[in-house]
Amino acid sequence: MTDIVIAGFGTVGQGFAEVLAHTSPGLREQFGPLRLVGAFDSRSYAYDTNGLDPVALLESKAAGRVGKRDIPGTSRELLDEMDYDILVEVTPTDIGDGGSGMGHILSALGAGRHVITCNKGPLSLRFQELEGLATRRGAMLRFEGSVGGAMPIIHVAKDIMAGEDITSIKGILNGTCNFILHRMGNEGLPFQQALREAQQLGYAEADPTYDIEGVDSACKVAILSNAIFGRDVTVHDVMRVGISSVTDEAIALAREQGQVLRLIGEVGQSRLEVAPRLVPIGHPLAIGGTLNIAQIDAKFSGPITVAGRGAGRMETASAILSDLMTILRAQ
Amino acid sequence: MTDIVIAGFGTVGQGFAEVLAHTSPGLREQFGPLRLVGAFDSRSYAYDTNGLDPVALLESKAAGRVGKRDIPGTSRELLDEMDYDILVEVTPTDIGDGGSGMGHILSALGAGRHVITCNKGPLSLRFQELEGLATRRGAMLRFEGSVGGAMPIIHVAKDIMAGEDITSIKGILNGTCNFILHRMGNEGLPFQQALREAQQLGYAEADPTYDIEGVDSACKVAILSNAIFGRDVTVHDVMRVGISSVTDEAIALAREQGQVLRLIGEVGQSRLEVAPRLVPIGHPLAIGGTLNIAQIDAKFSGPITVAGRGAGRMETASAILSDLMTILRAQ
Repeated sequence: MTDIVIAGFGTVGQGFAEVLAHTSPGLREQFGPLRLVGAFDSRSYAYDTNGLDPVALLESKAAGRVGKRDIPGTSRELLDEMDYDILVEVTPTDIGDGGSGMGHILSALGAGRHVITCNKGPLSLRFQELEGLATRRGAMLRFEGSVGGAMPIIHVAKDIMAGEDITSIKGILNGTCNFILHRMGNEGLPFQQALREAQQLGYAEADPTYDIEGVDSACKVAILSNAIFGRDVTVHDVMRVGISSVTDEAIALAREQGQVLRLIGEVGQSRLEVAPRLVPIGHPLAIGGTLNIAQIDAKFSGPITVAGRGAGRMETASAILSDLMTILRAQ
Repeated sequence: MTDIVIAGFGTVGQGFAEVLAHTSPGLREQFGPLRLVGAFDSRSYAYDTNGLDPVALLESKAAGRVGKRDIPGTSRELLDEMDYDILVEVTPTDIGDGGSGMGHILSALGAGRHVITCNKGPLSLRFQELEGLATRRGAMLRFEGSVGGAMPIIHVAKDIMAGEDITSIKGILNGTCNFILHRMGNEGLPFQQALREAQQLGYAEADPTYDIEGVDSACKVAILSNAIFGRDVTVHDVMRVGISSVTDEAIALAREQGQVLRLIGEVGQSRLEVAPRLVPIGHPLAIGGTLNIAQIDAKFSGPITVAGRGAGRMETASAILSDLMTILRAQ
């Protein structure tokens, strides 16, 4: 029996609750039952060591509250009191001080509990500290969904290529920017119009700064640098240029030369940057739409490419599920 | 200490010996030393329980023989007498009866030793029997390099997506065919000329039947069907059309419609086939060159794409290395 708590019950938290409601019999057979014992958002919580019904929680949340009880004190204090095996931390990213997610992860790892998170704040601010704490407490810290949604880059680079000498990772790490650049390039739309379209389709937030100025991509570059290259950097160490200053002229010129502009995040021996770059049409990184894609280059294998949907309720939940498998397999 | 035997000392076996000669200190620290204790090709062998020097074996092989001693009786009998933990089975593929590779794998698994193989014969003929034997003996059977060289499709589909409901896998599984179709489409070359070019560049064999008639791709489709979908099929169950009958006219017509022809292998709910198919330009599967690429579709994640070099000495050796990590991590 594995007991799980979900911290944060927004889109991704709800998606993962749905996954838990539909785990396959084969999975239960292999790893024993998975039991959701706690869930909370910023206002209310539900906790029952005998197990909660994920479907009931989803219905309750749809009606306004994840649980009947208000959170007393801070959510970290609440979590400190809970008994569980794995924390799924999916509260919103805060790159100021890591937000409440930082407290949740510290609480869980400090108590030797495994953590699965998609929260880019803690990972792009204090990664090595969190990894060190996990190691000391014999806990696992997994974060596939923090970089590129369903795209399995962390598993591929960190686990599958563990014996390799990885020399660089570069890729399209933000679907919103890629959608905008793709529309500008393909349809000749000016930036503002492509942005409005992205907002209407729900790909971009009302305040799109975090995406279009490359902050989201920079967080992911910092996480890759820390997790795959073993460095100790923060999002603020990443050289960053967004796409808001990309002109129609630049895009048209690229097109004439058989190239497209893409917002590329790159970690290399001496690189740590996010910037719009020219990519030849036909190159894997010239993809359109909201997909995320990354090319991992290594000594023996040569370049390995992975791609997948960069965001979305079930897509990100699937990344959490893959981390869950990894933790269960290691028990 | 993990003791390894390499069966087959051609391109891939030599590549893996080179990898063993260059394992990183981090790897040794995490998993203890890796020791090569045996290696053989079809003629000679070397065996020393105190360890062999991979570099010396490579030099000896370059001069004509992997070891000083001739193989007495069959190589399976020789292997039966060896003491080791992991067999790396990289003898040539034989889809008649599985060839000597079948005997080697049966010998190793029967003795409870782990097996890493790139040999498509045994895997595309008697997969479930071999998996069953491995399970009964508590051994692991891994085969990342058997499908798509460095492309990590087995790890992604079998391990990372283990909790998912995979609905289909389709992809370009043979670099030789893709090179030929790419050259025909891009340069307007007739089939025979593109084939000759592939042969001159070393991408195609003197007898190219196995590649261009889709047999190689069909083996890989059978392996994916067995390993990922849990079926029990052989290469002979795969509906197969090769590329030798693809005309210049068909390619030109595709091009006029913004499409390319690609040899696509597909496993789905009711599909098990290899055939030339139209792919829209810009689609991930429209890639050129000798890369291998596969798209795995699943319920939660949506389509996940992986790509990598489909063949090559170090590329395939890197797939063996990733299997080795998986086995060591599970100990």
